[in-house]
Parts: sequence; structure tokens; C-alpha cells
Amino acid sequence: MLKARTKNISIVLYKPKYAGNIGAVARAAKNMGISNIIVAGARDFDNEEMRQRSTHLAADVLDNIQYVESIQEALGSFNYIVGTTARLGKGRGPFLAPRQAARDIADISQKNKVALLFGPEDTGLANEELRLCHAVVTIPTSREFTSLNLSHAVMILCYEIFIASSPAVSAAEAAPKLALSSELEGMYGQIKTLLADIGFLNPENPDYWMMHLRRFFTRAGILSREVKIVRGICRQLEWYAHHKKT
Amino acid sequence: MLKARTKNISIVLYKPKYAGNIGAVARAAKNMGISNIIVAGARDFDNEEMRQRSTHLAADVLDNIQYVESIQEALGSFNYIVGTTARLGKGRGPFLAPRQAARDIADISQKNKVALLFGPEDTGLANEELRLCHAVVTIPTSREFTSLNLSHAVMILCYEIFIASSPAVSAAEAAPKLALSSELEGMYGQIKTLLADIGFLNPENPDYWMMHLRRFFTRAGILSREVKIVRGICRQLEWYAHHKKT
Repeated sequence: MLKARTKNISIVLYKPKYAGNIGAVARAAKNMGISNIIVAGARDFDNEEMRQRSTHLAADVLDNIQYVESIQEALGSFNYIVGTTARLGKGRGPFLAPRQAARDIADISQKNKVALLFGPEDTGLANEELRLCHAVVTIPTSREFTSLNLSHAVMILCYEIFIASSPAVSAAEAAPKLALSSELEGMYGQIKTLLADIGFLNPENPDYWMMHLRRFFTRAGILSREVKIVRGICRQLEWYAHHKKT
Repeated sequence: MLKARTKNISIVLYKPKYAGNIGAVARAAKNMGISNIIVAGARDFDNEEMRQRSTHLAADVLDNIQYVESIQEALGSFNYIVGTTARLGKGRGPFLAPRQAARDIADISQKNKVALLFGPEDTGLANEELRLCHAVVTIPTSREFTSLNLSHAVMILCYEIFIASSPAVSAAEAAPKLALSSELEGMYGQIKTLLADIGFLNPENPDYWMMHLRRFFTRAGILSREVKIVRGICRQLEWYAHHKKT
């Protein structure tokens, strides 16, 4: 296992509510060697409160937080997105344990930008946001009390990534370049349009089948060049359908 | 590995300074199924602040905290005491990693009372207190910033104990059913016909693109049910193409 390339790993907090938690997240991340944080969909947090919880030793991490408007803006430049959730509803998984995910992340981070995505403290990530993820991690807890503090969840995942990285050699050296999130979304959009055109998707619930396809493609770790092939096929199918009509 | 007997495990906080941290410790411990906390050498913490950080769901843990005067009083009734430290000075070890300690703790807790001892936020445990311990755990961190928040340190150790006691789910048990080779070949045949029909494949060398697709599908470890989805899409595309022609 290669040491995770922590400069390629970012923590993305989607609509966090409490300044104190952001400070605690900065501290936990820096303890485990991760210093990129993006906050999406929320800003103007009490600076004093953040700093108190980060301690002055992680103040640099706070100062470098990127604040962006939307989750799409936050995730667009990443190759591999790991969502986190405590809610194990149908269609939200398959779920990985942190240890298992950490091994993948250590490998994938060698040549790819990895986002660890955490939802708001009260509701967590909705299905809509989980759909943007290549993998979904759920942290095991006692059944009696499953709701983790945000910074505790961040700490466990970052700790596992830190531990997963040891200097042995792994398959990651050979790992090819995964497609960017923006390339994937372009491809999904094109597939969705095509499948709706040919009547494969139910217009009432187009995302049901799309979710299966997304899971499949992301599990596969689709490469940039493969996205191009899939889009080429879709284009040809569209052309063919149109050509035959007229 | 036996499941840790969590009712035999207690968290002992020696001279903690901040009410907020005690609340966060209560929450973390309860998340991992541990609900005994002893606070030694400090009392009269702001109750409101503790509750805010424990959340009301771990308020019962706070209510049951035992406050005692001295560390000796706190530890007297335990059979096995695990200290924690970030400072690796001579004579303070030998040090165990949390994962290693957690396995021991899961076993030992079957028939013994186990204390997890944490020092004050600013100084941690002194040599004098470490001498009372049967084992000393140090949590690995980035060299640049080794000082963990108290509740984060508690969380990591409790999490490792929780994980050490979970029955290992082998990858094979968790893995879903892959498609049979015969299912795959049927799918490839159908895709090839479709792609030839729409003019995507060069009739001179139809296998060039098919090879890329095969690579992708086999790398993905495609499931039986996913083969059915792909074939359903192909069928619909064929029907659509044919329907439009006539």
C-alpha cells in the first residue's frame, strides 16, 4: 500500500451549520495530514469560534478554506468522490466500511483528486448528493446512537486513510487516470437524454435506472478514454435515430 | 474475536479542563456503545455546555458520570488500565497502536474491568500517571501536528474497540453475484450486433472497439442484474431503430 497522497485529498463540507464543527474538522484533518477543505453552500461563519476549536496550530487550514456556492462547483474538479452517510436507505448504497474505503482512497489518491464529502450536521447527505459519489462510506456505530458529530466522522475517515498508508508497494502505481467528475456528469446527461428519447426511461422517475448505471460506472472506476468511447456510441445512436426518422 | 463487553469498559478522564470536551466525549463513547465515564480530579463543569456537545441523545451518559477526587480512586476497581499519550518519551512506553490495543481490550473485557485513561487537554498524562497503566496507546498522527482533541482521541480508541469486536465480514460474503461468462457473452453479442447496425463498428475490424468494451465491463465486475439492464437498453434501442425505419 502506498502512502496516500494527502495533497490530492480534500474534505468537502456541504452546508455545515456550526462554526465550531468547521474548526474541529480543520484540526482533525491536519492531525492526519490533510489540509484542503472546501465548504459548499454556506459561508460567513464566526471566525473566533472556528479558531478556538481548530487551535492556532491548525489556523492555516482554516485560512485556506475554499468557500463555493454549490456542491457541483465544489466537486467538479475531482476524479473520485466519497460520500458519507449514517442512513442506510435503499438505493443509497452500496456502503463501504471506512477501512475498506481508506485502502481504495490511498491507492486512488496517487494519481487522482479525491473528495471526502460530508453533509449537514442535522440531515446528512440526501440521495441527490449521494448520487454524485463514486463510493459511499458508512461508519459503524452502536445501534442505539448512530449520529456522529461531524468532526468525529471526519476524524475516523482521515485516521483510516492515514493508517491505510504504509510504504509497501501496491497496484496503485499502475492505476490509470480516472475520468473527472465533470466528464462523468456530461456522459450521464447524454445517456439520460438518449434513454429518454428511446423510451427506456420512465419520465416519471428517470433517475431510477440512471442510479443503477451510475453505480456500475463508478464501481468500475471508468477512465477518461472510456467516457469518450461511451459518448461516441451515444452520439452515433442519436445520429442514427435522427437520420432514420427524417 | 469476541465482541468487547462494553459494560466492563470505562473512560476515565483525568483532570479535563473543558466542559465542551466532556460532552463530546460522552457522545463519542455512546456512539461506540460505551457509556461509563469517570472524571477524576475535576468537577463543577458547566452543565449547559456539556449537554450541548453531548446532544440530548447522550445526556444519560453525562448524568451517570462518576466524579471522584483522585486518579487512584478512579482506577482502584479496574483490572486493566490503558493509558493514552502523544508524547513518546523514554520510559513512557512500550507503546501500542490503537488497533493492537483494541484487540487486547476486546478479549480482556470479557472477564475484567477495563479503564481507558486520558489526561488533561494541555499536558496529557505525566509519567507518574502512565506508571499506573498496564498498556500505553499512542494514536498515530502527522508529524506536523500531533495534538489531538480529547474527544477525537476517545473516538479513535472507542471506534477501534468497536471494530475489533465486530465479526469480520469477508469480502466474499459481502460481494454480490457476478454475471456468468455465458451471460456476458450473450450481452457482448447483442451489443456488437447493435453497434454494427448503427454503423459504429467498422465491419473490417469489429472487434477493436468491442475489446475496449470488454475490458471495461470485466474490470467493473459486472453483476447479473446489470447485464439484464444493459440488454434491456440494447433491446429498446433495436426496437426503436426498427420501429422508426418502418
